Amino acid sequence: MAHPVTPVSPPLKDELDIVIPTIRNLDFLEMWRPFFQHYHLIIVQDGDPTKTIRVPDGFDYELFNRNDVNRVLGPKASCISFKDSACRCFGFLVSKKKYIFTIDDDCFVAKDPSGKEINALAQHIQNLLTPSTPFFFNTLYDPYREGADFVRGYPFSMREGAPTAISHGLWLNIPDYDAPTQLVKPLERNSRYVDAVMTIPKGTLFPMCGMNLGFNRELIGPAMYFGLMGDGQPIGRYDDMWAGWCAKVICDHLNLGVKTGLPYIWHSKASNPFVNLKKEYKGIYWQEEIIPFFQSIVLPKECTTVQNCYIELSKKVKEKLGSIDPYFQKLGDAMVTWIEAWEELNPPAQAAQSTGVKKEEPSTKAK
Amino acid sequence: MAHPVTPVSPPLKDELDIVIPTIRNLDFLEMWRPFFQHYHLIIVQDGDPTKTIRVPDGFDYELFNRNDVNRVLGPKASCISFKDSACRCFGFLVSKKKYIFTIDDDCFVAKDPSGKEINALAQHIQNLLTPSTPFFFNTLYDPYREGADFVRGYPFSMREGAPTAISHGLWLNIPDYDAPTQLVKPLERNSRYVDAVMTIPKGTLFPMCGMNLGFNRELIGPAMYFGLMGDGQPIGRYDDMWAGWCAKVICDHLNLGVKTGLPYIWHSKASNPFVNLKKEYKGIYWQEEIIPFFQSIVLPKECTTVQNCYIELSKKVKEKLGSIDPYFQKLGDAMVTWIEAWEELNPPAQAAQSTGVKKEEPSTKAK
Repeated sequence: MAHPVTPVSPPLKDELDIVIPTIRNLDFLEMWRPFFQHYHLIIVQDGDPTKTIRVPDGFDYELFNRNDVNRVLGPKASCISFKDSACRCFGFLVSKKKYIFTIDDDCFVAKDPSGKEINALAQHIQNLLTPSTPFFFNTLYDPYREGADFVRGYPFSMREGAPTAISHGLWLNIPDYDAPTQLVKPLERNSRYVDAVMTIPKGTLFPMCGMNLGFNRELIGPAMYFGLMGDGQPIGRYDDMWAGWCAKVICDHLNLGVKTGLPYIWHSKASNPFVNLKKEYKGIYWQEEIIPFFQSIVLPKECTTVQNCYIELSKKVKEKLGSIDPYFQKLGDAMVTWIEAWEELNPPAQAAQSTGVKKEEPSTKAK
Repeated sequence: MAHPVTPVSPPLKDELDIVIPTIRNLDFLEMWRPFFQHYHLIIVQDGDPTKTIRVPDGFDYELFNRNDVNRVLGPKASCISFKDSACRCFGFLVSKKKYIFTIDDDCFVAKDPSGKEINALAQHIQNLLTPSTPFFFNTLYDPYREGADFVRGYPFSMREGAPTAISHGLWLNIPDYDAPTQLVKPLERNSRYVDAVMTIPKGTLFPMCGMNLGFNRELIGPAMYFGLMGDGQPIGRYDDMWAGWCAKVICDHLNLGVKTGLPYIWHSKASNPFVNLKKEYKGIYWQEEIIPFFQSIVLPKECTTVQNCYIELSKKVKEKLGSIDPYFQKLGDAMVTWIEAWEELNPPAQAAQSTGVKKEEPSTKAK
């Protein structure tokens, strides 16, 4: 093993789960071992449940396949996508931790410009534990970072910031492009290391990528639903986008912060642009109506919880997007099912209860 | 001379003026010579008009002191600050060029992480000549930059972006802190080179610093008024902030873009925090009302020019901020005077006219 085991307890060890949709790459966990091995992993297998995912020794993990999803959720399992990495949100549902870090299995450890391996998880934790600044733009980026502060002209009353709900990390090497851009620029690689974390201002939407993402489950968990994608659905690759639009609108309503920037991971493999085009093409034109829809949403001030906001959003989705395609009626219903599942598995006194799926010890398979 | 003269015509040579408030530092122009010497300089002297500013040979420049301001503007000269770098906006008024770059005389050439001297002006030009993306956030920053693009999920209809009105550059070494932060962190230096240019989203205000700033004078010039500061005024060091708030609100209304980030300059000298505190202290608490005021402004859709917008804004300033202090009544009036002066010196067919202050050849003093 190339890296020594950290002797001290890593940050938030007992308060964070790492959620990974299907590990197809055997090197993935080995590469992340020095950073992940003290944390609990939740692996959500997206395809054929009879296939076995091999997890190297020494990891504390649970693995859920489709049979587990059906068993845990019963009829509500319909809201969890099948044969698509969107199924990862099942991991958010069954986690009992305060924080989630989710990462794709083609994302490896990146290096900073000095050649040092980047501990992406540690940076996400730092992002999540320090406030955001959604109400006014700080030109020197994250003012809570070592060596930085609020610049002249930043209102003092706004310097407390807002609690950070989401930490969106970026990717070196293969950029997260849509299929048309992949086709046009097959050789483009992201080699620019931008040494910044910034808050996406209140009122501004962004394209949230699920590849390298941290969030505070207590603050925003119920909005991190990755929608209906993959098997039997008319679109794919909009799972994380959907979650990002919904979550950002709700963060803005509840005065929570969303950060983007550091940490980088090394995105190793471009997915097939032809396959992606097939998955994306409806999303690409539907999105032209979806974005103005999300930009115009005003949630009623009576909505003071993420769950309330999300149910309200589901109604608006059916009402305003239902005319685009029957898919949005189905999606609106699935959003409600998701919240019902969330409330069932995460009742108010959740900490003291067991859902029957939580296990204390590492094993090779959940059930 | 350390640098060879550039053999080719530099970009926008005949379309850009460099505006500098008072040069007290003899090294300043020498250091910038390789980058500035082909451009026309407008120097606006902020203090005693009997003092002489020595400009090294080989620069094409005009120098305006207070007597010149009074002569050119007559009674309207009251809108131009005296004994304060806010007087720089007089240079914006008398320029006849499409683009302005303004810089302070304690800002030197910075180096990028590879040790190469940064041509700040060239980067501002690049920022101003490429669109902004104020309507949706691009997580890989400026999508028009080499090696970057719009990421997955960015609506295609928004990829045309918006014309860029303002390019706000940053500072290595001495950060632009207010007096309280200077006092608390006297030794803090900015050594973080963030290799990014980004658009400040529509609807988000920012603290605009006048130290290292480019703008498109045709698009936003009349909003770049630096207010009433310095001699005889109750505040200082809010000149650029004021211009930034007004300009951003108007850019948002007119769908124009504002970028921040690269280029960096090397800010050599921290100003005296005790003097700054005296200048700033009223601004620091007034600002707590000013920011919500600017955040709540909705300009009528009939306002389709910067001038219209600015006059409308002046009315709102008097109406909504007048109760804070009589200063804002005076400022509101000065805003109107500024627009009158702008229209006088920049009539619609401006290109063909002379204001009587423009000179073709370098000299040591305007008049």
